[in-house]
Amino acid sequence: MSSHHIVRDDQEPALIIANGAACSEELLGQLLEWSPLVIVLDSAIERVLELGIKVDVLLGDFDRDFDANYYKESQYPIEIAHTPNQDKTDLEKAFDYLINRKIPAVNVVWATGKRADHTITNITNIVRFRNQLKIVILDDHSKVFLLPKKFEKWYPKNSIISLIPIGEVSNIHSKNLFYPLENDSLTIGYRTGSSNHASEDGIVMITHESGDLLLMECWD
Amino acid sequence: MSSHHIVRDDQEPALIIANGAACSEELLGQLLEWSPLVIVLDSAIERVLELGIKVDVLLGDFDRDFDANYYKESQYPIEIAHTPNQDKTDLEKAFDYLINRKIPAVNVVWATGKRADHTITNITNIVRFRNQLKIVILDDHSKVFLLPKKFEKWYPKNSIISLIPIGEVSNIHSKNLFYPLENDSLTIGYRTGSSNHASEDGIVMITHESGDLLLMECWD
Repeated sequence: MSSHHIVRDDQEPALIIANGAACSEELLGQLLEWSPLVIVLDSAIERVLELGIKVDVLLGDFDRDFDANYYKESQYPIEIAHTPNQDKTDLEKAFDYLINRKIPAVNVVWATGKRADHTITNITNIVRFRNQLKIVILDDHSKVFLLPKKFEKWYPKNSIISLIPIGEVSNIHSKNLFYPLENDSLTIGYRTGSSNHASEDGIVMITHESGDLLLMECWD
Repeated sequence: MSSHHIVRDDQEPALIIANGAACSEELLGQLLEWSPLVIVLDSAIERVLELGIKVDVLLGDFDRDFDANYYKESQYPIEIAHTPNQDKTDLEKAFDYLINRKIPAVNVVWATGKRADHTITNITNIVRFRNQLKIVILDDHSKVFLLPKKFEKWYPKNSIISLIPIGEVSNIHSKNLFYPLENDSLTIGYRTGSSNHASEDGIVMITHESGDLLLMECWD
């Protein structure tokens, strides 16, 4: 077995392709290269197959005259996960699917950029999976993830780091941010930490005591 | 003076063109037709002028080797509003500018669709202007605005109506929504009212007691 096979197991992040705006093929290609499992949401399958991508799971409520069985035959082997529950979004149902399969981490693309309600719901709903699944949402300008209570990562000087509280977040401290936080609180809609950046090449540290804090690495 | 002139005064909404993804020229054209005042944020001016649009105000911190004076000459008459305050986004500074000029309402385009931090900050920060400025954010898939405590509007059956709480919103009641709200609470990240829709042609009513609740009219 090659080393390639050894790392391509379920410990690498799965990839969910949602139903918003497509990202660059370069980003998609990078993520596909290492992903052991590709899940596509609902009618996005049509756009995904045009790109020649092999899909492992097609998941959705298929509520719009959509013939999932067509893909069962044409894309064999593919798992069709029919999830009719209207209380959850297809993206949340895909997270539940991964948790049931005990897959610990997932990258998500095409989750932003079309309908504003989908974009804001997809981004903010990741916080409820804090203890179950490590989720990263990516698009051509952004990489979004939920911070643990203590976060440390090396960044080059001037890397844009935006801190977005989902609700209220209290007792935030930072090291190596240009606009430092010192026992500060952030509240969505009223006080956010958008467009901060790393002061110097080096470790950025961010701690907080309570609440859900997203970090967004962004670029123009 | 023609009737055209009578309605094109400062009581019609101003238009802010922010620095995110461009919308369709059709949407932009509809908004420009009635707008008495067009404000463009920072380096978006380059993309706006390519479209042949007459700009009234260029506003920003101009912090990226950007020569605002070039436009003062080439686009005469244009007001250059230099707003270096780093505690606010350019969009918030444009809202402040309109409030100072006692303009009561504004439409905003190009505020979504590129960097996720800009999209989420631009959308959620409108709540703090509740009593000062009527703000509507528009893109090719969405129309977003803050609800008053009691909201009523006529919608065709099946119109998508998403309710997104910015923080916590309590005691929500609705009439003529397919998934009715009855003394419900919504919390961003945990329980939102995304992808609801009008049950029938008719008035949709939504009331809430406390908190900031956004309504998003969306279409695929």
